[in-house]
Amino acid sequence: MNHYRITENENLKSMVGSFSRAPFQLNAIFESDAELIGFNNDKILAITYDAIVEEIEEGLYEDAYQIGWMAITVSVSDLAAVGAKVLGVLLDLKVPKHFDAIRLKNLQQGINDACDFYGCYVFGGDTNKNNILQVGSTALGFCENKLMRKGLSASDVLYVSDNVGLGSSYAYSRFISNTKSEYLPKAKIKEGQLLSKFASSCIDTSDGLFPALCQLMEVNNLGFNLNILFKDMLHNSCLKICKETGLPHWIFMCGPHGEYELLFTIPLKNVQKFEDEAKRIHWRPIRLGEVTNKQKLLTNIDGISINPFETTNLYEKQHIKSPEQYMMELLKLDKEMRL
Amino acid sequence: MNHYRITENENLKSMVGSFSRAPFQLNAIFESDAELIGFNNDKILAITYDAIVEEIEEGLYEDAYQIGWMAITVSVSDLAAVGAKVLGVLLDLKVPKHFDAIRLKNLQQGINDACDFYGCYVFGGDTNKNNILQVGSTALGFCENKLMRKGLSASDVLYVSDNVGLGSSYAYSRFISNTKSEYLPKAKIKEGQLLSKFASSCIDTSDGLFPALCQLMEVNNLGFNLNILFKDMLHNSCLKICKETGLPHWIFMCGPHGEYELLFTIPLKNVQKFEDEAKRIHWRPIRLGEVTNKQKLLTNIDGISINPFETTNLYEKQHIKSPEQYMMELLKLDKEMRL
Repeated sequence: MNHYRITENENLKSMVGSFSRAPFQLNAIFESDAELIGFNNDKILAITYDAIVEEIEEGLYEDAYQIGWMAITVSVSDLAAVGAKVLGVLLDLKVPKHFDAIRLKNLQQGINDACDFYGCYVFGGDTNKNNILQVGSTALGFCENKLMRKGLSASDVLYVSDNVGLGSSYAYSRFISNTKSEYLPKAKIKEGQLLSKFASSCIDTSDGLFPALCQLMEVNNLGFNLNILFKDMLHNSCLKICKETGLPHWIFMCGPHGEYELLFTIPLKNVQKFEDEAKRIHWRPIRLGEVTNKQKLLTNIDGISINPFETTNLYEKQHIKSPEQYMMELLKLDKEMRL
Repeated sequence: MNHYRITENENLKSMVGSFSRAPFQLNAIFESDAELIGFNNDKILAITYDAIVEEIEEGLYEDAYQIGWMAITVSVSDLAAVGAKVLGVLLDLKVPKHFDAIRLKNLQQGINDACDFYGCYVFGGDTNKNNILQVGSTALGFCENKLMRKGLSASDVLYVSDNVGLGSSYAYSRFISNTKSEYLPKAKIKEGQLLSKFASSCIDTSDGLFPALCQLMEVNNLGFNLNILFKDMLHNSCLKICKETGLPHWIFMCGPHGEYELLFTIPLKNVQKFEDEAKRIHWRPIRLGEVTNKQKLLTNIDGISINPFETTNLYEKQHIKSPEQYMMELLKLDKEMRL
């Protein structure tokens, strides 16, 4: 096993890596959250498809309104991460034959509310009958500038758009503590559009912060030096759980269920201007550290040394079968790292 | 039950009819095979998502190469029907956890060959683990002219791009006679682009000829007068079955499994020019009849009077549970019509 490679990327490459790419496509595989198409000379089309399958099957999402909201948010967030303006979505609705009318209404309401919130429209889509509910969407937008995962340089400043860990604390509430918890994350469209003017790279945290860091490291072949305590970047819902249970902060960064914040880098020369502009739209992104060209390891936060590739690959490596098993594996890792 | 309404459209309206449409979208619901987006002033974007779900689950498609080919063809054919040039596709691959490596290779080969054939590319996509194989794609293209299902006028000439019924004869071979049969239909991209210069309406026959006729009738509120024998528009594979079994010709037009030909209308003034241009690309579309404004009924072919809305709605109305039951219901209808 390679300690600085994302196993999931290797799997994906074996699934889709053999297809020929368009000469007019601006990104290679893994290089951006959405596909960037050089359609005309002036504008870049951004397009992405994403579906919610495992989340429904495993019971992470149950509420029909939430599922509708997420069906739009998953793809729109990919457009946010490339700084796109969203035009609209195509729906992919796979619905059980005898689907409850109230659940259908709630599902539609979630889709409608998300579209309203993102200022986009439902263009159309496809409906199939299916054993279980599965929903997805294709989102279409356009960009003024090219913003990808690829592009950062050493000494760029690393930020995240807001506190992270909500995706993990929500999963913890559903699977481990069986407590009530809210989860209707909002894709950061407005922020992404601002970033397209200033950032050298961007990715959403839909798979969690560590997996997002790994993707940036792998595609850019650079590393990060973080100089912030985990607690200062964690969502309140995580801090509360850590306080109650004594769980270490870092495990809320591991995903694989994230929260649709944006992780991005700003070149030093743009930092002041960017922070001023962000303030103007009442946005306070969190500074995490900076890009290094020395190594891919992320070290010495909260007094422990974490290799995020190790935590990111844990899921595949240990053939995780339950949330409880995953939690135990993460706690084992925590113990090892503190020895 | 309304005899001149497509039940499935009513169901779809209740699923997706409540969403707000984009003011810059050129088509309303049901008005075109793909969604038409007025993006710039000069070009029209065409986008569509389609998936193969029921076809795999019911055993209609089994061969992985065929499934790969169809995953691309289903969406590309929608672009053909709006006369678009195809840019590329996003894949939606829902694959079982322990998917056979050879099947995966064949699936990929089918996708690759279809993309090569249509001159398009795989932009990216999404992969999920799923209990059964389900594949789909979003296809993106652009149009020089607006070609939709909506737009035909009385006295326009009705054509189909080639013989129809292959979708039904294939389904018959798989489900009824258990004989070997080929099914790798080709979306009519080149033909669609020619049509965008001459046609007043177009739809693909992915659901069969009668359902396609119904869609054109419903959305345009006009009818057709067909003046051709069914046998003269039927695919050889159907004629062979009819000869062997005595089955009536018309039941191979009913769908719901079609063959991705194009059904379209040409205004009288364009007919000569269109037929000349078609000949130039060695294409001989079949003239079926003409548009009428009197009624929605399609009458008096092979000496029987068929209401295609009745056959199209049969599936929903009779709660069809098996191909054999469907066949029996169609034969019952045939008997009634001949009384």
